[in-house]
Amino acid sequence: MIFITRRERFNAAHRLFRPEYSDEMNAAVFGKCSNPLWHGHNYELFVTVKGNIDPETGFLVNLKTLSELIENLVISKLDHRNVNLEVDFMKDKLASTENLAIGIWNELKDAISELGADLHCIKLCETENNFVEYFGN
Amino acid sequence: MIFITRRERFNAAHRLFRPEYSDEMNAAVFGKCSNPLWHGHNYELFVTVKGNIDPETGFLVNLKTLSELIENLVISKLDHRNVNLEVDFMKDKLASTENLAIGIWNELKDAISELGADLHCIKLCETENNFVEYFGN
Amino acid sequence: MIFITRRERFNAAHRLFRPEYSDEMNAAVFGKCSNPLWHGHNYELFVTVKGNIDPETGFLVNLKTLSELIENLVISKLDHRNVNLEVDFMKDKLASTENLAIGIWNELKDAISELGADLHCIKLCETENNFVEYFGN
Amino acid sequence: MIFITRRERFNAAHRLFRPEYSDEMNAAVFGKCSNPLWHGHNYELFVTVKGNIDPETGFLVNLKTLSELIENLVISKLDHRNVNLEVDFMKDKLASTENLAIGIWNELKDAISELGADLHCIKLCETENNFVEYFGN
Amino acid sequence: MIFITRRERFNAAHRLFRPEYSDEMNAAVFGKCSNPLWHGHNYELFVTVKGNIDPETGFLVNLKTLSELIENLVISKLDHRNVNLEVDFMKDKLASTENLAIGIWNELKDAISELGADLHCIKLCETENNFVEYFGN
Amino acid sequence: MIFITRRERFNAAHRLFRPEYSDEMNAAVFGKCSNPLWHGHNYELFVTVKGNIDPETGFLVNLKTLSELIENLVISKLDHRNVNLEVDFMKDKLASTENLAIGIWNELKDAISELGADLHCIKLCETENNFVEYFGN
Repeated sequence: MIFITRRERFNAAHRLFRPEYSDEMNAAVFGKCSNPLWHGHNYELFVTVKGNIDPETGFLVNLKTLSELIENLVISKLDHRNVNLEVDFMKDKLASTENLAIGIWNELKDAISELGADLHCIKLCETENNFVEYFGN
Repeated sequence: MIFITRRERFNAAHRLFRPEYSDEMNAAVFGKCSNPLWHGHNYELFVTVKGNIDPETGFLVNLKTLSELIENLVISKLDHRNVNLEVDFMKDKLASTENLAIGIWNELKDAISELGADLHCIKLCETENNFVEYFGN
Repeated sequence: MIFITRRERFNAAHRLFRPEYSDEMNAAVFGKCSNPLWHGHNYELFVTVKGNIDPETGFLVNLKTLSELIENLVISKLDHRNVNLEVDFMKDKLASTENLAIGIWNELKDAISELGADLHCIKLCETENNFVEYFGN
Repeated sequence: MIFITRRERFNAAHRLFRPEYSDEMNAAVFGKCSNPLWHGHNYELFVTVKGNIDPETGFLVNLKTLSELIENLVISKLDHRNVNLEVDFMKDKLASTENLAIGIWNELKDAISELGADLHCIKLCETENNFVEYFGN
Repeated sequence: MIFITRRERFNAAHRLFRPEYSDEMNAAVFGKCSNPLWHGHNYELFVTVKGNIDPETGFLVNLKTLSELIENLVISKLDHRNVNLEVDFMKDKLASTENLAIGIWNELKDAISELGADLHCIKLCETENNFVEYFGN
Repeated sequence: MIFITRRERFNAAHRLFRPEYSDEMNAAVFGKCSNPLWHGHNYELFVTVKGNIDPETGFLVNLKTLSELIENLVISKLDHRNVNLEVDFMKDKLASTENLAIGIWNELKDAISELGADLHCIKLCETENNFVEYFGN
């Protein structure tokens, strides 16, 4: 069993809020992250997959294939986008880093199985001081 | 003559566009950065000041004072804000990294002179691959 | 189950030595880290907590609350301090990175439970080449 | 139980290819990594060991000893070398990051046991975007 | 006058040696960098250009255009290549970081002028500890 | 003219204070940096030299020689030391980053001239947020 990680990046706008809250309530719960006019981040995404090495190639998975899969299923939906308004898999969800990491897991899990590996971890860094890890359950 | 640099950070949303352009024209000129629903960045700001060391303290400037000045004049206006809509010194300007660096220079120049130093450089990093430097003329 | 990590930093002096050893013996066992006149580090601390997402907020824990808790219980005791002489939870302990990580775990464990999460890992980086991880047993 | 990690670095040339493949077949399977005239990397190696703290020293292992052991058994064989042609433990293996991580594990495992600790993980970073982790089975 | 920097990366093999030297002489002058079987690096390239902001776009240059230009004129010739054997602009030159930085300058200078900016600096990082800067004369 | 930079690191304890001040006065002027029981840092030192490339070697200077020179003249005096009490070239000086950068410049300037290059800049980073640059006048 070997683990391989691919880093990708995207820049997006988001806002933390509940639509049924007043602006004051949102500010009290979510602080400056609830700014109704949005803010944004340079997100760093680390996708870790695990499995056995193919003796023919010495690879667990071809990293070019893995990178293209992440680009097609995740980055193209998030990069230079508004997480709250434009991302299908975040519809009706709070745009927290936690929920975003789980959403990315769900987008990738089956497609990575088809590559012959298992998705192990989604690590999503919002700033240099904050990151989330999700292992699927 | 000695040079001291203080790093500060802010997270903001922005959009590159000209209001008189159509959406298609904005997309052609500014690419995905023109998304009408915004995107955002973790900006890194490096403020470099220069001058002579005070023999009493061994300091050019007290970095705590410099950091508070940058916080009050710049970071508090930009962090978790929309650069296009909420930042007084960017009003009616294209929200490019170039213009933002110049705007920050103008906010800080006189206040740093009052500390007894000269503003030397504003370096503003938009992503790990792109940054701008402005030296005042 | 989701994992969230908050990074904090502190700058401190320390020394590795046993008081019952001679200076020569301390130098033989601990090398230049035993310098009786101290040395110091920029420590990086990564606190990882785990638990379930609150559906009301989309958060595992509010990171502002977590950061303040780490500041109050740990950083305020260590930053710009002498680990051997001034830190209550390190009293009578060797000031190794290993012991410091365990000490920080003990300071934080119960307080993080009160936030509704479980402390998962203390990662403490002494230099860019050395770090320690402690998972509580 | 505590975990300690030591980072070391080496710069090496390598090539991904199977000798029984044609150049066209190697290019199809391994892409530009199969260039017959080689390419190279600044590899970052993170060696994580685990075990109990020695109450006499406050250490799991002496990091100077661990660093010298990694230097002698691994870095001296890889640094400024050709992974395909000059590294005894990679002979007749595909020079993938996966295989290199496993080769390094095998070089270090017993020697670390003799230090009184257990090898826990070999993390090998090929670029800022790609890394492999191996836990020994 | 504003300065903009774009970072690009390439992975390459090289060797430092003079063909008229013996292997012993090359080892004495160039150390392990003269290994006849090559070694390699993850090079980081920072291209800094300067000029005036276009009031229509808020840009000095379009960074997508600049990135494509660097890709076409420099990265495509160096990435996953052997600097000594495969790079036209390094033919018959010692493959030192100094000479490589000057070679990259010469490849880019005129093309950047055609974009309406001036090439200001080529910064080329060979490792995290070593880098070269060239300003054109 | 080409510029080459070598990075070196050292870990040291220090304190900012004036001996003729009371503890209260030192705390008012220097803040927590005046702690009488010391604190410390992982300092990063970037030494930039400039000059012409030797056509025989392709080098401005041999970086191994430059690194050994910095080690002998600077790092060996500072690493795991107390800047206030143990460093000859800082005797009777305030141990500020500014003064330390100038002290390092004076230690290195003539020795670098003997290598056939000119010292251009000492950049000294105290934390990830603060650094000083000195160009010699």
